[in-house]
Amino acid sequence: MRATLMYGAGDVRVEEVPDSVVKQPTDALVRVTASCICGSDLWPYGSMSPVDGPARMGHEFLGIVEDTGSDVTTVKKGDLVVAPFAFSDGTCEFCREGLYTSCVHGTFWDVEPDEGGQAEAVRVPLADGTLVKLPVAADSALVPSLLTLSDVFGTGHHAAVAGGVNERTRVTVIGDGAVGLLAVLSAKRLGAEQIILMGRHKARTDLGREFGATDVVDARGEEGIAQVRELTGGHGTHVVLEAVGNMPAYEQALGVVRPGGVISRVGVPQYEDAPIGFASLFRHNIRLAGGPAPSRAYIEELMPDILSGAIEPGKVFDVTTGLDGVPAGYQDMADRKSLKVLIKP
Amino acid sequence: MRATLMYGAGDVRVEEVPDSVVKQPTDALVRVTASCICGSDLWPYGSMSPVDGPARMGHEFLGIVEDTGSDVTTVKKGDLVVAPFAFSDGTCEFCREGLYTSCVHGTFWDVEPDEGGQAEAVRVPLADGTLVKLPVAADSALVPSLLTLSDVFGTGHHAAVAGGVNERTRVTVIGDGAVGLLAVLSAKRLGAEQIILMGRHKARTDLGREFGATDVVDARGEEGIAQVRELTGGHGTHVVLEAVGNMPAYEQALGVVRPGGVISRVGVPQYEDAPIGFASLFRHNIRLAGGPAPSRAYIEELMPDILSGAIEPGKVFDVTTGLDGVPAGYQDMADRKSLKVLIKP
Repeated sequence: MRATLMYGAGDVRVEEVPDSVVKQPTDALVRVTASCICGSDLWPYGSMSPVDGPARMGHEFLGIVEDTGSDVTTVKKGDLVVAPFAFSDGTCEFCREGLYTSCVHGTFWDVEPDEGGQAEAVRVPLADGTLVKLPVAADSALVPSLLTLSDVFGTGHHAAVAGGVNERTRVTVIGDGAVGLLAVLSAKRLGAEQIILMGRHKARTDLGREFGATDVVDARGEEGIAQVRELTGGHGTHVVLEAVGNMPAYEQALGVVRPGGVISRVGVPQYEDAPIGFASLFRHNIRLAGGPAPSRAYIEELMPDILSGAIEPGKVFDVTTGLDGVPAGYQDMADRKSLKVLIKP
Repeated sequence: MRATLMYGAGDVRVEEVPDSVVKQPTDALVRVTASCICGSDLWPYGSMSPVDGPARMGHEFLGIVEDTGSDVTTVKKGDLVVAPFAFSDGTCEFCREGLYTSCVHGTFWDVEPDEGGQAEAVRVPLADGTLVKLPVAADSALVPSLLTLSDVFGTGHHAAVAGGVNERTRVTVIGDGAVGLLAVLSAKRLGAEQIILMGRHKARTDLGREFGATDVVDARGEEGIAQVRELTGGHGTHVVLEAVGNMPAYEQALGVVRPGGVISRVGVPQYEDAPIGFASLFRHNIRLAGGPAPSRAYIEELMPDILSGAIEPGKVFDVTTGLDGVPAGYQDMADRKSLKVLIKP
């Protein structure tokens, strides 16, 4: 079968690999019908050393169950299913609390060496705890939106949930990538009274307005901070959803968060140490929250709004390609020519 | 009148200063009948440069109202009152939300140049928003416990509240100083099912057990972390109350916090940058909370348990002295000979 491999920064190839097959009784084999490239894939695309490659890529996918191990009971051959970006047993103490990304038996697809979603098929471990059946056909027009349940919408939603967004909160979203835009959609869905989107790409911030942003600030750094403060009576917003992951985004978050507020991070931090002392967080009881989204926990909650047409998170996909187009898709996303690339293997 | 001045690290003196008097219509003059030395006073005692001195000291006190400005309505001459360690107007948007330490008109006593609690009297700005009348006489046996409402008990309680302690949480408390011990008492009061106190001074950890600690770990660093993990099924505790403020305490907190858990800091951070990236906080959705306690918000809630005798937070005071004994009190606390020094000016 064919799969996407990253050999190092800027070097993505689609090659023949051994067919994925069921190995464990708890596995399912999923024939991928839709997957995509994640903003987080761009971090290794920008910096990965060749000694760490080649690595199988892709952690967002949906597809049709083709085979199941003998212990699998919740999905069967022919089901259309979506997989979260981490697999999980669904039964450990963390899964039972909804923190599927800290499952004691599961982990991220990105650290599973021989599987990846940007491929023709995937062996899914712990299928009962991981996969969720979708009540549509594989060619449904809802597929792009349902695919976002795998990661990007779940991640935007997690940012908002971890930040405690409700109808009494003002929110700043930092980043107009697909996660940032779906953080806007999620904040709107949870009733936020004001949603300020910080981003510089008009086509993206326009989609952000469509998703519910009440204000757009296209300046960054001190100027952007000053504009957000002006929009919020001088004090900043109760919640900041940080959907980028680099240090300038964190510093911007510190600048726009209100005393007593919370910075909720879902962009994978590209730094380890950062300011959290008296002047930055402590003085005004500013909290820090977030992490990898337990997407699995949110699928059942978010799916009905997609099925009903109330929301259309799949609008973040602006390009569709086959596997052959994946290397160019990485480059186009890195160049900000594409917002998010949908793959139909 | 006499007051405590810090001239630099290790140099505390009690000297004659101009009498405090009412200056603004919103002021009250309080004759101090009980105050104390705070663990946070030991940071400048260890490191303050003489160019930053002399500084008036003390931010925890109670006493008798001796005079009031014309606008003051909630307290009157002769009332016994307690003052939180920050003064506040009680009416701004942050005070109305209970975040009195971020009051737009108030601030900490420590940055008010001509006033301090380790003195014979204090001019209290914004008296209506700041002072709380106590329903006992100035010579009541409850005075030590009521004095803890000014800061140290409110701070321990704030740690527990910001950490979300309830009857379903396991808690680690880092630090066996007075704040740490009252964080234990607060976690117990909020119903925590397990409270592990990390501290090395047996007299203090014994008081911690009396306050509700279920376990004591006297090792630090990797060994201490391993012991806490062993006590918690390998995963650490849902909540960590960090009551020290230095980097080793923060690193210890990272080591004992459970995935999905929260580190609640009330020790004033002696660092600005610290690890908060993928490996430390992000990977397992660990949250960071805490800051200066809005003690004013908690006084009415905590006082009844003191008045009824249900709790006795004043047990943290192990020495009582007059103003003359204050310089020695600092040194004894720095040397860990005293836990917390009560001052009767």
